[in-house]
Amino acid sequence: MTKKLWGGRFKKKTDPDFFEFQKSIQYDYKLAKYDIYHSQVHIKALKAAGMLTLAEAKRIDTALNHILVQVLSGGFKPDLSCEDIHTDIQNKVEKAVGKLAAKLHTFRSRNDQVAFDTRYYCEDTMKSTATLLKTLILSLESLADKYKGSLIPGYTHTQRAQVVYFKDYLGAFSLMLGNDCQRIDKFLKGNSICIGSGALAGQYSFLLDKYKKILKGSKIKIPENSLENVSNRDFVIEALSILSILQMHLSRLAEDFILYSTKEFNYLDLPEEFCTGSSLMPHKKNPDFLELVRGYTGRIYGNLISVLTMMKGLPLTYNRDMQLDKEPLFSSVEIVQGELKILARFIKGIKLNKAAIDRALEDESLYAMKLMEYLVREKKVAFKDAHDIVGKLIRYSEENDRKIKDIEAGSLKKISPHLDRKIIERVFR
Amino acid sequence: MTKKLWGGRFKKKTDPDFFEFQKSIQYDYKLAKYDIYHSQVHIKALKAAGMLTLAEAKRIDTALNHILVQVLSGGFKPDLSCEDIHTDIQNKVEKAVGKLAAKLHTFRSRNDQVAFDTRYYCEDTMKSTATLLKTLILSLESLADKYKGSLIPGYTHTQRAQVVYFKDYLGAFSLMLGNDCQRIDKFLKGNSICIGSGALAGQYSFLLDKYKKILKGSKIKIPENSLENVSNRDFVIEALSILSILQMHLSRLAEDFILYSTKEFNYLDLPEEFCTGSSLMPHKKNPDFLELVRGYTGRIYGNLISVLTMMKGLPLTYNRDMQLDKEPLFSSVEIVQGELKILARFIKGIKLNKAAIDRALEDESLYAMKLMEYLVREKKVAFKDAHDIVGKLIRYSEENDRKIKDIEAGSLKKISPHLDRKIIERVFR
Amino acid sequence: MTKKLWGGRFKKKTDPDFFEFQKSIQYDYKLAKYDIYHSQVHIKALKAAGMLTLAEAKRIDTALNHILVQVLSGGFKPDLSCEDIHTDIQNKVEKAVGKLAAKLHTFRSRNDQVAFDTRYYCEDTMKSTATLLKTLILSLESLADKYKGSLIPGYTHTQRAQVVYFKDYLGAFSLMLGNDCQRIDKFLKGNSICIGSGALAGQYSFLLDKYKKILKGSKIKIPENSLENVSNRDFVIEALSILSILQMHLSRLAEDFILYSTKEFNYLDLPEEFCTGSSLMPHKKNPDFLELVRGYTGRIYGNLISVLTMMKGLPLTYNRDMQLDKEPLFSSVEIVQGELKILARFIKGIKLNKAAIDRALEDESLYAMKLMEYLVREKKVAFKDAHDIVGKLIRYSEENDRKIKDIEAGSLKKISPHLDRKIIERVFR
Amino acid sequence: MTKKLWGGRFKKKTDPDFFEFQKSIQYDYKLAKYDIYHSQVHIKALKAAGMLTLAEAKRIDTALNHILVQVLSGGFKPDLSCEDIHTDIQNKVEKAVGKLAAKLHTFRSRNDQVAFDTRYYCEDTMKSTATLLKTLILSLESLADKYKGSLIPGYTHTQRAQVVYFKDYLGAFSLMLGNDCQRIDKFLKGNSICIGSGALAGQYSFLLDKYKKILKGSKIKIPENSLENVSNRDFVIEALSILSILQMHLSRLAEDFILYSTKEFNYLDLPEEFCTGSSLMPHKKNPDFLELVRGYTGRIYGNLISVLTMMKGLPLTYNRDMQLDKEPLFSSVEIVQGELKILARFIKGIKLNKAAIDRALEDESLYAMKLMEYLVREKKVAFKDAHDIVGKLIRYSEENDRKIKDIEAGSLKKISPHLDRKIIERVFR
Repeated sequence: MTKKLWGGRFKKKTDPDFFEFQKSIQYDYKLAKYDIYHSQVHIKALKAAGMLTLAEAKRIDTALNHILVQVLSGGFKPDLSCEDIHTDIQNKVEKAVGKLAAKLHTFRSRNDQVAFDTRYYCEDTMKSTATLLKTLILSLESLADKYKGSLIPGYTHTQRAQVVYFKDYLGAFSLMLGNDCQRIDKFLKGNSICIGSGALAGQYSFLLDKYKKILKGSKIKIPENSLENVSNRDFVIEALSILSILQMHLSRLAEDFILYSTKEFNYLDLPEEFCTGSSLMPHKKNPDFLELVRGYTGRIYGNLISVLTMMKGLPLTYNRDMQLDKEPLFSSVEIVQGELKILARFIKGIKLNKAAIDRALEDESLYAMKLMEYLVREKKVAFKDAHDIVGKLIRYSEENDRKIKDIEAGSLKKISPHLDRKIIERVFR
Repeated sequence: MTKKLWGGRFKKKTDPDFFEFQKSIQYDYKLAKYDIYHSQVHIKALKAAGMLTLAEAKRIDTALNHILVQVLSGGFKPDLSCEDIHTDIQNKVEKAVGKLAAKLHTFRSRNDQVAFDTRYYCEDTMKSTATLLKTLILSLESLADKYKGSLIPGYTHTQRAQVVYFKDYLGAFSLMLGNDCQRIDKFLKGNSICIGSGALAGQYSFLLDKYKKILKGSKIKIPENSLENVSNRDFVIEALSILSILQMHLSRLAEDFILYSTKEFNYLDLPEEFCTGSSLMPHKKNPDFLELVRGYTGRIYGNLISVLTMMKGLPLTYNRDMQLDKEPLFSSVEIVQGELKILARFIKGIKLNKAAIDRALEDESLYAMKLMEYLVREKKVAFKDAHDIVGKLIRYSEENDRKIKDIEAGSLKKISPHLDRKIIERVFR
Repeated sequence: MTKKLWGGRFKKKTDPDFFEFQKSIQYDYKLAKYDIYHSQVHIKALKAAGMLTLAEAKRIDTALNHILVQVLSGGFKPDLSCEDIHTDIQNKVEKAVGKLAAKLHTFRSRNDQVAFDTRYYCEDTMKSTATLLKTLILSLESLADKYKGSLIPGYTHTQRAQVVYFKDYLGAFSLMLGNDCQRIDKFLKGNSICIGSGALAGQYSFLLDKYKKILKGSKIKIPENSLENVSNRDFVIEALSILSILQMHLSRLAEDFILYSTKEFNYLDLPEEFCTGSSLMPHKKNPDFLELVRGYTGRIYGNLISVLTMMKGLPLTYNRDMQLDKEPLFSSVEIVQGELKILARFIKGIKLNKAAIDRALEDESLYAMKLMEYLVREKKVAFKDAHDIVGKLIRYSEENDRKIKDIEAGSLKKISPHLDRKIIERVFR
Repeated sequence: MTKKLWGGRFKKKTDPDFFEFQKSIQYDYKLAKYDIYHSQVHIKALKAAGMLTLAEAKRIDTALNHILVQVLSGGFKPDLSCEDIHTDIQNKVEKAVGKLAAKLHTFRSRNDQVAFDTRYYCEDTMKSTATLLKTLILSLESLADKYKGSLIPGYTHTQRAQVVYFKDYLGAFSLMLGNDCQRIDKFLKGNSICIGSGALAGQYSFLLDKYKKILKGSKIKIPENSLENVSNRDFVIEALSILSILQMHLSRLAEDFILYSTKEFNYLDLPEEFCTGSSLMPHKKNPDFLELVRGYTGRIYGNLISVLTMMKGLPLTYNRDMQLDKEPLFSSVEIVQGELKILARFIKGIKLNKAAIDRALEDESLYAMKLMEYLVREKKVAFKDAHDIVGKLIRYSEENDRKIKDIEAGSLKKISPHLDRKIIERVFR
């Protein structure tokens, strides 16, 4: 059984170090399922074209199904001495049906297979990512619901700005993640899994016609332009871009929750089972999960730039460089899915620390806008002037280290004739 | 007239170096048009809410329209001493209507304005990018049509593979660019331009209700979650991702055309008016345009990574970091549009060099697949065996430095009993 | 006067849109100084080789010096209709000396000039960056000195860990920036500014010999391999890498200072003249300078990836893509220098908020390590056991909402027989 | 035996999914050697400080040495259920010496260990990278020597420029790689492997003093500032930057050799044992090795951007994000070393195709500069005019499809009175 699908014209044996360097089985075995799907369509076409008898087709198909069952049940063991998953499956079929297996690869190119397999992988994993996102959104919504009456300080520039509902704060993240779902939906609509490119010039028409019949009603298509199909890795980059934006959202949530769980903010109590300690300092309870989520942003961006750079300036059509799309793709999918899975449970375990939040809500500057509204709407002060008055009031309060609600009438009047104790008491309670 | 829209609570004057460092007017003046649109909606709402009289609203609106006309006619001059475009327009209105202008910014936040403006900018420029793409596709199609019967060698691994139609080769690029158009369409569908976030906590409901009425039927919306809206720069990253994939396509076209216009390939004659010479070497005719297109890929990717990195780990909601989304966005839009404009005319000027292509098409290896097909379909040789036979035939031809069509019958038989002179003559003419 | 230095073999005129697209004068005018240096060496060599008379050389040199004075005094005005700075200077010399100017470009290539100019630019600007770094370090040291006895909580995982000196905390940043200086020093040692590559194949030896004589004792060199010299942009990438690490340091300082100036931490009082307010919320005092510093990290990384990507896979020797190294280089240099300049003064304006820090220092967990030390060194408890004991003590304190120093003897004993009131009083005061 | 080195203060058990998510043993086992070195220094210090008896220290040291032997002989098996390599080694020591092992981690922090280990890893692997580079340079030099008299066309803009020696062409690459070696040397000089930071605040002085004595004369140091030391990942980014520039050089060599081994250029014959074929097209001999080298550029750049992004804006001091530096670092080191190893042998197998090169050298435009030189130096034609004359001569030759050396005297004179048959014959043979 050979470990590669080519070699007739070569006199010299492949250098073993180079063989190791160039092979992909150690990661592309993850495409096994999709590669079998490709083979099953191809077998049908060969049979329809009279290149396989019914009995032959059945034997090969049975062998393929047997491998598929292993894949689906988690029992598939790639032969790591093979060049790639295509060769591995070819060999496994040969083990089952003998020399007949050779016919499986008739008029087929790995360029076509790998485009098919990788698109199919994206289809499946982007779908499952959307499902995980939805679970996470439900978690956020359930936390929001639990604390639906709670207020927290809202921030701009990490400085207190205005009071907002905690549920609206969480709602901002739900919306971001909902937008990520929509991006995935749009991706899936545009993702067309194709069979029939040959190496570049397209499958022979006597087989292509059979493909068409077989695929009627299926989501798998005949490529519009075979040269384009074997050259195309847009879908990998699109998936990595979507995951990058999603990961950016997670990094912001992580950053905020790290902040809110410091002793200084102290708004959130993080679930202990998702925190870690220190081997030196016994008092530490660290938000490692959130830090890793934040840190993985580097990896997800790096994977995107990796594939973009790899594709830069590649001549048409297929080039071997393109094999290197898979590890970054798999890495980003697996990292993001791992984060989402844990995050959904992490969120559920979060508790709001009401006492600390209530202390923060006593900060009078959070109510500056209420005073602004009063001055503008009821006292008909021009907005710009009101802005000035409130700014000066706050400065006075800070400089004299006195709460606004404790400033006496005389001082208020000096700041502005529009101010009096009644207003102040109404706004700052 | 002040150069910034804040300051009441500050005792010290802004440091002038810092003021220069932080201001954005030198690039965000490109948002003038959209900022005026925002103001015009806001004015209507203020009027409806009774915070401006009809006459006041009219005066401000007239002033805004006057500035808008300047913008649209190219006559708008930003005042570079202002902090940003919002301040500049505010000041220009003040020049026209005096102190009344102060009311324009009533209960409005630049956080809301800049989100609105930037989304609107993306809307407009992504639309015009799609138009430019369509023009380029037409150019490619017209070149394809001109040479519709022409064959060229098709490549994988930059090595000759099989003969393909030049029109199909160009069609691969047309399809890539068509896919870029589809990505833009999907972007536009998802891009929701919003007004009404306030600084973070949302516009006061007495104004929000007016917005809603005013915007009925318009594509502008009230934000679903105001915290999210002022925090969101997904649309910038999405646009930069789409432009990165598009640019990657252009880099591949550039690479191929650079190759095909070398003396060694010599398939294409590039239009002289888009080539440059050397100040030292008088014989040079260099494909500089294509090289710059290829080289700009770095810039476009860099702009994407710039905004992704900037957004990493930002706490909610608005942070000043986010101001730095604009230069990369503008840069990518302007570079890609510049390339597309010239490329459409460049493509039209390309000539196919038939003589050189015909010489290349004499390469017998290009017809190996025809022999494969014959052996498999007519001689019923197993595909794997046919692959082996043809591989050996080519090796024989190379080792003996003899054309396949000149190999005599005896040698053919030694390579394989399936080979004979008749077949060889049929396949390799 | 022509606007470009080539064209004899071209029948068609350069397309005006393409001319605009490809020209570089709008940014490479910043290389004027260095380009004049190149010309001055070349003039001397031409004279020595008998290709210019003494009088001719003098006239050209005087014209060059005249332009140089304008450059140094800030009065240089690039002619934006020229192709590049080389052409602009050539033309300006022509304006001064007439047709004789044509001899200046004898046997010279812009490939050689631009490599020389850009290396020289890096030399100068990396030197001045080091100077700015040193000023910033002095600022940090002076702040450290001002508060040399002050303690603050030290953090890991943004959670309080152990008490540290504020001066050591600042010292960490000084050391980072000192390491940046060392990286610049190493860069400068390796940066060899070369003249004499020609377009690629090297200057003619009759001129090269003259260069050698002229440059004896100068830091400018003859290229070791001319093909390499015109192909090389390593120095740009090295400079951008150094600036990226430096910028990463600044982003961490910015992040920490943003955190420490929140109302929640409140350790630092930022200088008002470097903060900004809100156009809507009158109470805001935002750390915009620090946010912009943090945000610019995206730009600096993006510029690095831009040049790395541009250089990927470029065939030898010079390609026009390489022109696109300059904007990212200039951008990173200017941004970083802008930040460093302001930051040095910003740091000086920072005030430590002792009251808030003292409150934080009351946090007993900060002294857990002192208790650990006591248990291990004086009570000979195994480290692992001591870790356990202190961990439980802290848990007890949290669960019972009681200060460690208030836990009564009985409870201490239950946690561990090694604990007693005396120890607790000593450690937690 | 526990799988993690902390936990006393935690009531809840670590979530098993989170434990899997956060652990690093699956990759940081590569640091085993260095972690043992750290332990061995620490053991000595504990003994010197009287915290271990001589016998205890010996027993632990023997156990560590035993593990070290396994690491060095390739027989080390990490326990993948541990949290990290520090825990794994701690546990393996415990297996050997029982409860005594607990003393090994006395007053030690993994923050200090991991900084030490990773710096040491960089030291070792950058050194071995330099060795591999030198071997590759020798290969290039031996190829250059083999073909030392051979000329090839030199290129700018992928267009033929001037004739150059093949050995000089290869010399350009040797020089690039030599510069990479120098960058590594500088890196090694600046890389200071430190022990003694504690978690952040520095090792207790009673141990630090012992470290100092033990390390006298060693290259290992006490950290200048412990806060900085546990916060620092500059050395990882520096290493990744150096590898990025090196990889960029390899990508250019790959690109050139891919080009030169096309049928169209045909200058190089690549060693068959490093090429691959097609499973569909029997005639293909593809330069897959070179394509993978070119393609891996994406990965190497992506790894750099990954760590840069991860470090952006991290507060002092250690954060868990920083654990994510290792996979990108290991990945880049392993990829580049893999490439270098094979490339050195690949280069040796390259053959120059003299016939094809000789045909290319017949291209008359390659000698345009010789005619320029003649006109300028011997005929005293101004350079600019000579440039014009030669440009027109080439245009004439192209338009009339006639070799320059075949243009008759009359036509030459019409192009320029400076041209005649004698000159032409001398220059263009």
